[in-house]
Amino acid sequence: MAQIQGILFDAYGTLFDVHSVVEAGRALTDDPQTLSLTWRQKQLEYTWLRALMGRYEDFWQVTQAALRYALRRLGLRASEAEFARLMEAYLSLRAFPEAKAALERLRGTPLAILSNGSPRMLAAAAASSGLAGVFAHVLSVDAVKTYKPSPKVYELGVQAMGAPAGQLLFVSANAWDVAGAKAFGYQVCWCNRANAPMEELGVAPDVTVGGLDEIPALVRRASAGSA
Amino acid sequence: MAQIQGILFDAYGTLFDVHSVVEAGRALTDDPQTLSLTWRQKQLEYTWLRALMGRYEDFWQVTQAALRYALRRLGLRASEAEFARLMEAYLSLRAFPEAKAALERLRGTPLAILSNGSPRMLAAAAASSGLAGVFAHVLSVDAVKTYKPSPKVYELGVQAMGAPAGQLLFVSANAWDVAGAKAFGYQVCWCNRANAPMEELGVAPDVTVGGLDEIPALVRRASAGSA
Repeated sequence: MAQIQGILFDAYGTLFDVHSVVEAGRALTDDPQTLSLTWRQKQLEYTWLRALMGRYEDFWQVTQAALRYALRRLGLRASEAEFARLMEAYLSLRAFPEAKAALERLRGTPLAILSNGSPRMLAAAAASSGLAGVFAHVLSVDAVKTYKPSPKVYELGVQAMGAPAGQLLFVSANAWDVAGAKAFGYQVCWCNRANAPMEELGVAPDVTVGGLDEIPALVRRASAGSA
Repeated sequence: MAQIQGILFDAYGTLFDVHSVVEAGRALTDDPQTLSLTWRQKQLEYTWLRALMGRYEDFWQVTQAALRYALRRLGLRASEAEFARLMEAYLSLRAFPEAKAALERLRGTPLAILSNGSPRMLAAAAASSGLAGVFAHVLSVDAVKTYKPSPKVYELGVQAMGAPAGQLLFVSANAWDVAGAKAFGYQVCWCNRANAPMEELGVAPDVTVGGLDEIPALVRRASAGSA
Protein backbone atom coordinates (compact mmCIF):
# COMPACT_ATOMS: atom_id res chain seq x y z
CA MET A 1 0.00 0.00 0.00
CA ALA A 2 1.04 3.59 -0.63
CA GLN A 3 1.34 6.12 2.22
CA ILE A 4 -1.98 6.93 3.86
CA GLN A 5 -3.07 10.54 4.44
CA GLY A 6 -6.37 9.63 6.07
CA ILE A 7 -8.80 6.79 6.68
CA LEU A 8 -12.50 6.62 5.83
CA PHE A 9 -14.70 4.07 7.57
CA ASP A 10 -18.03 2.69 6.53
CA ALA A 11 -20.46 2.75 9.48
CA TYR A 12 -23.00 -0.09 9.68
CA GLY A 13 -21.38 -3.48 10.09
CA THR A 14 -17.91 -1.92 9.97
CA LEU A 15 -17.71 0.38 13.02
CA PHE A 16 -21.19 -0.20 14.46
CA ASP A 17 -22.46 -3.65 15.32
CA VAL A 18 -26.04 -3.96 14.12
CA HIS A 19 -26.62 -7.05 16.28
CA SER A 20 -28.84 -5.03 18.63
CA VAL A 21 -31.23 -4.71 15.69
CA VAL A 22 -31.63 -8.50 15.83
CA GLU A 23 -32.23 -8.35 19.58
CA ALA A 24 -34.99 -5.79 19.09
CA GLY A 25 -36.80 -8.31 16.84
CA ARG A 26 -37.20 -10.88 19.61
CA ALA A 27 -40.37 -9.19 20.83
CA LEU A 28 -42.09 -9.98 17.50
CA THR A 29 -40.80 -13.35 16.35
CA ASP A 30 -39.05 -16.55 17.41
CA ASP A 31 -36.75 -16.05 14.43
CA PRO A 32 -35.35 -12.52 14.79
CA GLN A 33 -32.37 -13.52 12.61
CA THR A 34 -34.60 -13.98 9.54
CA LEU A 35 -36.38 -10.70 10.25
CA SER A 36 -33.03 -8.95 10.58
CA LEU A 37 -31.59 -10.48 7.40
CA THR A 38 -34.69 -9.70 5.33
CA TRP A 39 -34.77 -6.15 6.70
CA ARG A 40 -31.06 -5.56 6.02
CA GLN A 41 -31.24 -7.07 2.50
CA LYS A 42 -34.22 -4.88 1.56
CA GLN A 43 -32.60 -1.83 3.15
CA LEU A 44 -29.62 -2.24 0.81
CA GLU A 45 -31.77 -3.09 -2.21
CA TYR A 46 -33.89 0.01 -1.69
CA THR A 47 -30.78 2.23 -1.56
CA TRP A 48 -29.57 0.76 -4.86
CA LEU A 49 -32.99 0.87 -6.52
CA ARG A 50 -33.83 4.40 -5.37
CA ALA A 51 -30.39 5.65 -6.44
CA LEU A 52 -30.88 4.10 -9.90
CA MET A 53 -34.44 5.41 -10.18
CA GLY A 54 -33.23 8.88 -9.22
CA ARG A 55 -35.70 8.88 -6.31
CA TYR A 56 -33.58 9.47 -3.24
CA GLU A 57 -35.13 9.22 0.20
CA ASP A 58 -32.89 9.37 3.24
CA PHE A 59 -31.64 6.25 4.99
CA TRP A 60 -34.11 6.56 7.85
CA GLN A 61 -37.01 6.50 5.40
CA VAL A 62 -35.47 3.67 3.39
CA THR A 63 -34.87 1.68 6.58
CA GLN A 64 -38.50 2.18 7.64
CA ALA A 65 -39.73 1.07 4.20
CA ALA A 66 -37.49 -2.01 4.32
CA LEU A 67 -38.85 -2.91 7.77
CA ARG A 68 -42.44 -2.56 6.52
CA TYR A 69 -41.60 -4.91 3.64
CA ALA A 70 -39.83 -7.43 5.87
CA LEU A 71 -42.75 -7.58 8.32
CA ARG A 72 -45.29 -8.11 5.52
CA ARG A 73 -43.11 -10.67 3.77
CA LEU A 74 -42.73 -12.69 6.96
CA GLY A 75 -46.36 -12.28 7.97
CA LEU A 76 -45.49 -10.43 11.20
CA ARG A 77 -47.52 -7.70 12.84
CA ALA A 78 -45.97 -4.84 14.77
CA SER A 79 -47.80 -2.16 16.73
CA GLU A 80 -46.71 1.42 16.15
CA ALA A 81 -44.71 1.25 19.38
CA GLU A 82 -43.02 -2.03 18.36
CA PHE A 83 -42.18 -0.62 14.94
CA ALA A 84 -40.67 2.46 16.58
CA ARG A 85 -38.62 0.28 18.95
CA LEU A 86 -37.17 -1.69 16.02
CA MET A 87 -36.21 1.51 14.23
CA GLU A 88 -34.72 3.01 17.39
CA ALA A 89 -32.24 0.16 17.54
CA TYR A 90 -30.44 2.05 14.75
CA LEU A 91 -30.03 5.07 17.02
CA SER A 92 -28.35 3.22 19.88
CA LEU A 93 -25.78 0.96 18.23
CA ARG A 94 -22.63 -0.26 19.92
CA ALA A 95 -19.20 -0.18 18.35
CA PHE A 96 -17.52 -3.50 17.60
CA PRO A 97 -15.43 -4.54 20.62
CA GLU A 98 -12.07 -3.81 18.98
CA ALA A 99 -13.11 -0.52 17.35
CA LYS A 100 -12.34 2.04 20.06
CA ALA A 101 -8.82 0.86 20.87
CA ALA A 102 -7.98 0.48 17.17
CA LEU A 103 -9.12 4.03 16.40
CA GLU A 104 -7.16 5.41 19.36
CA ARG A 105 -4.00 3.76 18.04
CA LEU A 106 -4.64 5.61 14.74
CA ARG A 107 -4.45 9.03 16.40
CA GLY A 108 -2.45 11.39 14.23
CA THR A 109 -4.07 10.09 11.03
CA PRO A 110 -7.23 12.00 10.07
CA LEU A 111 -10.25 9.68 10.43
CA ALA A 112 -13.74 9.99 8.98
CA ILE A 113 -17.00 8.09 8.56
CA LEU A 114 -18.48 7.84 5.06
CA SER A 115 -21.88 6.21 5.25
CA ASN A 116 -25.32 5.71 3.73
CA GLY A 117 -26.76 6.75 7.10
CA SER A 118 -28.64 10.02 7.46
CA PRO A 119 -26.83 12.73 9.45
CA ARG A 120 -29.17 12.20 12.42
CA MET A 121 -28.66 8.42 12.41
CA LEU A 122 -24.89 8.78 12.21
CA ALA A 123 -24.73 11.36 15.00
CA ALA A 124 -26.84 9.10 17.23
CA ALA A 125 -24.75 5.99 16.50
CA ALA A 126 -21.46 7.84 16.98
CA ALA A 127 -22.70 9.11 20.36
CA SER A 128 -24.16 5.80 21.59
CA SER A 129 -21.06 3.87 20.55
CA GLY A 130 -18.70 6.26 22.32
CA LEU A 131 -16.74 6.93 19.11
CA ALA A 132 -17.99 10.46 18.43
CA GLY A 133 -14.85 12.38 19.33
CA VAL A 134 -12.50 10.36 17.16
CA PHE A 135 -13.61 11.52 13.73
CA ALA A 136 -12.59 14.67 11.89
CA HIS A 137 -15.59 14.24 9.56
CA VAL A 138 -18.86 12.33 9.65
CA LEU A 139 -19.93 12.25 6.01
CA SER A 140 -23.42 11.20 4.92
CA VAL A 141 -24.62 10.40 1.40
CA ASP A 142 -27.40 12.86 2.18
CA ALA A 143 -25.08 15.63 0.94
CA VAL A 144 -25.32 14.23 -2.62
CA LYS A 145 -28.78 12.57 -2.39
CA THR A 146 -27.73 9.21 -3.78
CA TYR A 147 -26.24 6.02 -2.33
CA LYS A 148 -23.13 3.88 -2.40
CA PRO A 149 -21.63 2.61 -4.67
CA SER A 150 -22.20 5.77 -6.73
CA PRO A 151 -18.88 7.55 -7.35
CA LYS A 152 -20.62 10.76 -6.18
CA VAL A 153 -20.66 9.33 -2.67
CA TYR A 154 -17.02 8.24 -2.63
CA GLU A 155 -16.05 11.69 -3.95
CA LEU A 156 -17.30 13.17 -0.65
CA GLY A 157 -14.40 11.52 1.17
CA VAL A 158 -11.79 12.96 -1.17
CA GLN A 159 -13.23 16.45 -0.81
CA ALA A 160 -13.44 16.33 2.98
CA MET A 161 -9.98 14.83 3.47
CA GLY A 162 -8.30 17.07 0.89
CA ALA A 163 -6.19 14.21 -0.47
CA PRO A 164 -6.43 12.08 -3.62
CA ALA A 165 -8.30 8.76 -3.29
CA GLY A 166 -5.08 6.81 -3.93
CA GLN A 167 -3.57 8.30 -0.73
CA LEU A 168 -6.60 7.51 1.41
CA LEU A 169 -7.62 4.20 2.94
CA PHE A 170 -11.28 3.21 2.78
CA VAL A 171 -12.37 0.53 5.25
CA SER A 172 -15.60 -1.43 4.91
CA ALA A 173 -17.03 -4.74 6.07
CA ASN A 174 -19.41 -4.80 3.10
CA ALA A 175 -17.85 -6.49 0.07
CA TRP A 176 -19.96 -4.53 -2.44
CA ASP A 177 -18.88 -1.27 -0.76
CA VAL A 178 -15.26 -2.46 -0.96
CA ALA A 179 -15.76 -2.98 -4.70
CA GLY A 180 -17.35 0.45 -5.15
CA ALA A 181 -14.58 2.24 -3.25
CA LYS A 182 -11.85 0.36 -5.11
CA ALA A 183 -13.48 1.10 -8.47
CA PHE A 184 -13.54 4.77 -7.45
CA GLY A 185 -9.81 4.76 -6.73
CA TYR A 186 -9.30 4.42 -2.96
CA GLN A 187 -6.84 2.10 -1.32
CA VAL A 188 -9.27 -0.32 0.23
CA CYS A 189 -9.24 -2.54 3.29
CA TRP A 190 -11.95 -5.18 3.58
CA CYS A 191 -12.81 -5.88 7.20
CA ASN A 192 -14.07 -9.40 6.59
CA ARG A 193 -15.05 -10.55 10.10
CA ALA A 194 -17.36 -13.27 8.77
CA ASN A 195 -14.85 -14.74 6.31
CA ALA A 196 -17.32 -14.18 3.46
CA PRO A 197 -16.47 -14.69 -0.22
CA MET A 198 -15.57 -11.51 -2.13
CA GLU A 199 -18.14 -10.18 -4.59
CA GLU A 200 -17.47 -10.89 -8.27
CA LEU A 201 -17.44 -7.28 -9.43
CA GLY A 202 -14.07 -7.18 -11.17
CA VAL A 203 -12.16 -5.45 -8.35
CA ALA A 204 -10.37 -6.72 -5.25
CA PRO A 205 -9.45 -4.99 -1.97
CA ASP A 206 -5.81 -4.04 -1.45
CA VAL A 207 -5.85 -5.82 1.88
CA THR A 208 -8.27 -7.94 3.90
CA VAL A 209 -8.34 -8.02 7.70
CA GLY A 210 -10.37 -9.95 10.27
CA GLY A 211 -10.96 -6.92 12.52
CA LEU A 212 -10.24 -3.21 12.85
CA ASP A 213 -7.40 -3.93 15.31
CA GLU A 214 -5.20 -5.02 12.39
CA ILE A 215 -5.37 -1.60 10.73
CA PRO A 216 -2.87 0.44 12.81
CA ALA A 217 -0.04 -1.94 11.86
CA LEU A 218 -1.04 -1.74 8.19
CA VAL A 219 -0.90 2.03 8.27
CA ARG A 220 2.50 2.02 10.00
CA ARG A 221 3.87 -0.41 7.41
CA ALA A 222 2.51 1.73 4.56
CA SER A 223 4.19 4.82 6.05
CA ALA A 224 7.47 2.98 6.59
CA GLY A 225 7.37 1.48 3.09
CA SER A 226 7.02 4.81 1.37
CA ALA A 227 9.24 6.81 3.75
CA MET B 1 -56.29 2.56 -17.30
CA ALA B 2 -55.93 4.89 -20.27
CA GLN B 3 -55.97 3.59 -23.86
CA ILE B 4 -52.96 1.41 -24.67
CA GLN B 5 -50.91 2.04 -27.81
CA GLY B 6 -48.47 -0.79 -27.17
CA ILE B 7 -47.26 -3.26 -24.56
CA LEU B 8 -43.72 -3.82 -23.27
CA PHE B 9 -42.86 -7.05 -21.49
CA ASP B 10 -40.02 -7.81 -19.15
CA ALA B 11 -38.35 -11.10 -20.15
CA TYR B 12 -36.98 -13.25 -17.32
CA GLY B 13 -39.65 -14.46 -14.95
CA THR B 14 -42.34 -12.58 -16.90
CA LEU B 15 -42.38 -14.19 -20.39
CA PHE B 16 -39.63 -16.78 -19.89
CA ASP B 17 -39.76 -19.33 -17.12
CA VAL B 18 -36.31 -19.61 -15.56
CA HIS B 19 -37.22 -22.90 -13.86
CA SER B 20 -34.97 -24.82 -16.27
CA VAL B 21 -32.07 -22.95 -14.65
CA VAL B 22 -32.97 -24.72 -11.40
CA GLU B 23 -33.11 -28.06 -13.22
CA ALA B 24 -29.62 -27.52 -14.61
CA GLY B 25 -28.34 -27.20 -11.02
CA ARG B 26 -29.35 -30.75 -10.07
CA ALA B 27 -26.10 -32.13 -11.47
CA LEU B 28 -24.13 -30.15 -8.85
CA THR B 29 -26.20 -30.12 -5.69
CA ASP B 30 -29.08 -31.76 -3.83
CA ASP B 31 -30.44 -28.25 -3.27
CA PRO B 32 -30.64 -26.66 -6.73
CA GLN B 33 -33.28 -24.25 -5.43
CA THR B 34 -30.77 -22.54 -3.11
CA LEU B 35 -28.18 -22.40 -5.89
CA SER B 36 -30.77 -20.89 -8.21
CA LEU B 37 -31.99 -18.32 -5.66
CA THR B 38 -28.45 -17.25 -4.72
CA TRP B 39 -27.48 -17.01 -8.38
CA ARG B 40 -30.58 -14.97 -9.28
CA GLN B 41 -30.20 -12.64 -6.28
CA LYS B 42 -26.55 -11.91 -7.11
CA GLN B 43 -27.36 -11.50 -10.80
CA LEU B 44 -29.77 -8.70 -9.91
CA GLU B 45 -27.48 -7.17 -7.30
CA TYR B 46 -24.62 -7.05 -9.78
CA THR B 47 -26.79 -5.25 -12.36
CA TRP B 48 -27.73 -2.64 -9.74
CA LEU B 49 -24.22 -2.28 -8.36
CA ARG B 50 -22.51 -2.10 -11.76
CA ALA B 51 -25.06 0.43 -12.98
CA LEU B 52 -24.44 2.60 -9.91
CA MET B 53 -20.67 2.21 -10.19
CA GLY B 54 -20.85 3.20 -13.87
CA ARG B 55 -19.13 -0.09 -14.76
CA TYR B 56 -21.49 -1.78 -17.18
CA GLU B 57 -20.83 -5.32 -18.31
CA ASP B 58 -23.46 -7.13 -20.35
CA PHE B 59 -25.98 -9.49 -18.77
CA TRP B 60 -24.17 -12.61 -19.94
CA GLN B 61 -21.01 -11.49 -18.12
CA VAL B 62 -22.97 -10.42 -15.03
CA THR B 63 -24.80 -13.75 -14.99
CA GLN B 64 -21.49 -15.63 -15.20
CA ALA B 65 -20.04 -13.56 -12.36
CA ALA B 66 -23.14 -14.18 -10.23
CA LEU B 67 -22.86 -17.93 -10.86
CA ARG B 68 -19.18 -17.90 -9.83
CA TYR B 69 -20.15 -16.13 -6.61
CA ALA B 70 -23.06 -18.47 -5.89
CA LEU B 71 -20.90 -21.57 -6.36
CA ARG B 72 -18.18 -20.23 -4.04
CA ARG B 73 -20.68 -19.05 -1.44
CA LEU B 74 -22.33 -22.49 -1.35
CA GLY B 75 -19.02 -24.37 -1.46
CA LEU B 76 -19.87 -26.08 -4.76
CA ARG B 77 -17.43 -27.05 -7.48
CA ALA B 78 -18.31 -27.01 -11.16
CA SER B 79 -16.15 -28.19 -14.04
CA GLU B 80 -15.87 -25.88 -17.03
CA ALA B 81 -18.40 -28.05 -18.84
CA GLU B 82 -20.83 -27.98 -15.89
CA PHE B 83 -20.46 -24.21 -15.60
CA ALA B 84 -21.18 -23.86 -19.31
CA ARG B 85 -24.26 -26.09 -19.01
CA LEU B 86 -25.65 -23.93 -16.21
CA MET B 87 -25.14 -20.78 -18.28
CA GLU B 88 -26.66 -22.39 -21.37
CA ALA B 89 -29.91 -22.87 -19.49
CA TYR B 90 -30.39 -19.13 -20.12
CA LEU B 91 -30.23 -19.71 -23.88
CA SER B 92 -32.97 -22.34 -23.99
CA LEU B 93 -35.77 -21.04 -21.79
CA ARG B 94 -39.41 -21.94 -22.18
CA ALA B 95 -42.25 -19.45 -22.18
CA PHE B 96 -44.73 -19.62 -19.30
CA PRO B 97 -47.60 -21.94 -20.29
CA GLU B 98 -50.14 -19.14 -20.79
CA ALA B 99 -47.80 -16.75 -22.62
CA LYS B 100 -48.21 -17.77 -26.26
CA ALA B 101 -52.00 -17.78 -26.33
CA ALA B 102 -52.16 -14.51 -24.40
CA LEU B 103 -49.80 -12.79 -26.83
CA GLU B 104 -51.77 -14.10 -29.81
CA ARG B 105 -54.95 -12.62 -28.37
CA LEU B 106 -53.10 -9.26 -28.24
CA ARG B 107 -52.51 -9.24 -32.01
CA GLY B 108 -53.16 -5.76 -33.37
CA THR B 109 -51.44 -4.10 -30.39
CA PRO B 110 -47.68 -3.54 -30.94
CA LEU B 111 -45.74 -5.77 -28.53
CA ALA B 112 -42.10 -5.53 -27.42
CA ILE B 113 -39.63 -7.01 -24.96
CA LEU B 114 -37.64 -4.60 -22.75
CA SER B 115 -35.07 -6.55 -20.79
CA ASN B 116 -31.75 -6.56 -18.95
CA GLY B 117 -30.74 -9.50 -21.17
CA SER B 118 -28.01 -9.09 -23.76
CA PRO B 119 -29.21 -9.09 -27.39
CA ARG B 120 -27.81 -12.61 -27.91
CA MET B 121 -29.51 -13.97 -24.78
CA LEU B 122 -32.84 -12.42 -25.73
CA ALA B 123 -32.71 -13.70 -29.30
CA ALA B 124 -31.92 -17.22 -28.06
CA ALA B 125 -34.72 -17.19 -25.46
CA ALA B 126 -37.25 -15.77 -27.91
CA ALA B 127 -36.37 -18.53 -30.37
CA SER B 128 -36.35 -21.41 -27.87
CA SER B 129 -39.63 -20.29 -26.32
CA GLY B 130 -41.41 -20.06 -29.68
CA LEU B 131 -42.33 -16.41 -29.09
CA ALA B 132 -39.89 -14.80 -31.52
CA GLY B 133 -42.37 -13.78 -34.24
CA VAL B 134 -44.76 -11.97 -31.92
CA PHE B 135 -42.66 -8.93 -31.03
CA ALA B 136 -42.22 -5.75 -33.04
CA HIS B 137 -39.11 -4.91 -30.94
CA VAL B 138 -36.74 -6.83 -28.71
CA LEU B 139 -35.06 -4.10 -26.67
CA SER B 140 -31.96 -4.74 -24.58
CA VAL B 141 -30.41 -2.44 -21.97
CA ASP B 142 -27.19 -3.02 -23.90
CA ALA B 143 -28.20 -0.08 -26.11
CA VAL B 144 -27.72 2.30 -23.17
CA LYS B 145 -25.12 0.33 -21.16
CA THR B 146 -26.89 0.47 -17.85
CA TYR B 147 -29.60 -1.58 -16.11
CA LYS B 148 -33.15 -1.36 -14.85
CA PRO B 149 -34.51 0.55 -12.98
CA SER B 150 -32.54 3.41 -14.58
CA PRO B 151 -34.91 5.74 -16.46
CA LYS B 152 -32.49 5.48 -19.42
CA VAL B 153 -33.62 1.88 -19.87
CA TYR B 154 -37.34 2.60 -19.69
CA GLU B 155 -36.85 5.44 -22.18
CA LEU B 156 -35.86 2.82 -24.79
CA GLY B 157 -39.45 1.54 -24.83
CA VAL B 158 -40.93 4.97 -25.44
CA GLN B 159 -38.53 5.62 -28.31
CA ALA B 160 -39.13 2.26 -30.00
CA MET B 161 -42.91 2.34 -29.63
CA GLY B 162 -43.24 6.00 -30.65
CA ALA B 163 -45.85 6.70 -27.95
CA PRO B 164 -45.69 8.44 -24.57
CA ALA B 165 -45.12 6.22 -21.54
CA GLY B 166 -48.59 7.02 -20.20
CA GLN B 167 -50.14 5.38 -23.31
CA LEU B 168 -48.02 2.24 -23.07
CA LEU B 169 -48.46 -0.74 -20.77
CA PHE B 170 -45.37 -2.20 -19.13
CA VAL B 171 -45.71 -5.75 -17.82
CA SER B 172 -43.30 -7.32 -15.35
CA ALA B 173 -43.29 -10.12 -12.80
CA ASN B 174 -40.52 -8.37 -10.85
CA ALA B 175 -41.91 -5.97 -8.26
CA TRP B 176 -38.83 -3.71 -8.29
CA ASP B 177 -39.11 -3.46 -12.12
CA VAL B 178 -42.79 -2.60 -11.71
CA ALA B 179 -41.75 0.22 -9.36
CA GLY B 180 -39.07 1.48 -11.76
CA ALA B 181 -41.44 1.47 -14.76
CA LYS B 182 -44.21 3.19 -12.79
CA ALA B 183 -41.79 5.85 -11.48
CA PHE B 184 -40.74 6.44 -15.10
CA GLY B 185 -44.35 7.03 -16.16
CA TYR B 186 -45.66 3.84 -17.77
CA GLN B 187 -49.02 2.32 -17.09
CA VAL B 188 -47.87 -0.80 -15.28
CA CYS B 189 -49.23 -4.30 -14.88
CA TRP B 190 -47.63 -6.50 -12.22
CA CYS B 191 -47.78 -10.16 -13.20
CA ASN B 192 -47.65 -11.49 -9.64
CA ARG B 193 -47.83 -15.26 -10.17
CA ALA B 194 -46.31 -15.98 -6.75
CA ASN B 195 -48.64 -13.65 -4.81
CA ALA B 196 -45.59 -11.81 -3.42
CA PRO B 197 -45.80 -8.59 -1.39
CA MET B 198 -45.22 -5.37 -3.36
CA GLU B 199 -41.91 -3.58 -2.80
CA GLU B 200 -42.04 -0.50 -0.55
CA LEU B 201 -40.67 1.98 -3.09
CA GLY B 202 -43.41 4.58 -3.00
CA VAL B 203 -45.17 3.51 -6.22
CA ALA B 204 -47.86 0.93 -6.96
CA PRO B 205 -48.79 -0.87 -10.20
CA ASP B 206 -51.97 0.27 -11.99
CA VAL B 207 -53.16 -3.32 -12.07
CA THR B 208 -52.02 -6.69 -10.76
CA VAL B 209 -52.73 -10.00 -12.50
CA GLY B 210 -51.99 -13.64 -11.70
CA GLY B 211 -50.90 -14.52 -15.24
CA LEU B 212 -50.43 -13.06 -18.72
CA ASP B 213 -53.77 -14.53 -19.85
CA GLU B 214 -55.59 -11.76 -17.94
CA ILE B 215 -53.97 -9.01 -20.02
CA PRO B 216 -56.04 -9.14 -23.27
CA ALA B 217 -59.25 -8.36 -21.34
CA LEU B 218 -57.53 -5.47 -19.53
CA VAL B 219 -56.43 -3.96 -22.82
CA ARG B 220 -59.91 -4.35 -24.29
CA ARG B 221 -61.47 -2.67 -21.26
CA ALA B 222 -58.96 0.19 -21.44
CA SER B 223 -59.82 0.74 -25.13
CA ALA B 224 -63.56 0.60 -24.47
CA GLY B 225 -63.25 2.94 -21.47
CA SER B 226 -61.51 5.66 -23.44
CA ALA B 227 -63.46 5.23 -26.71
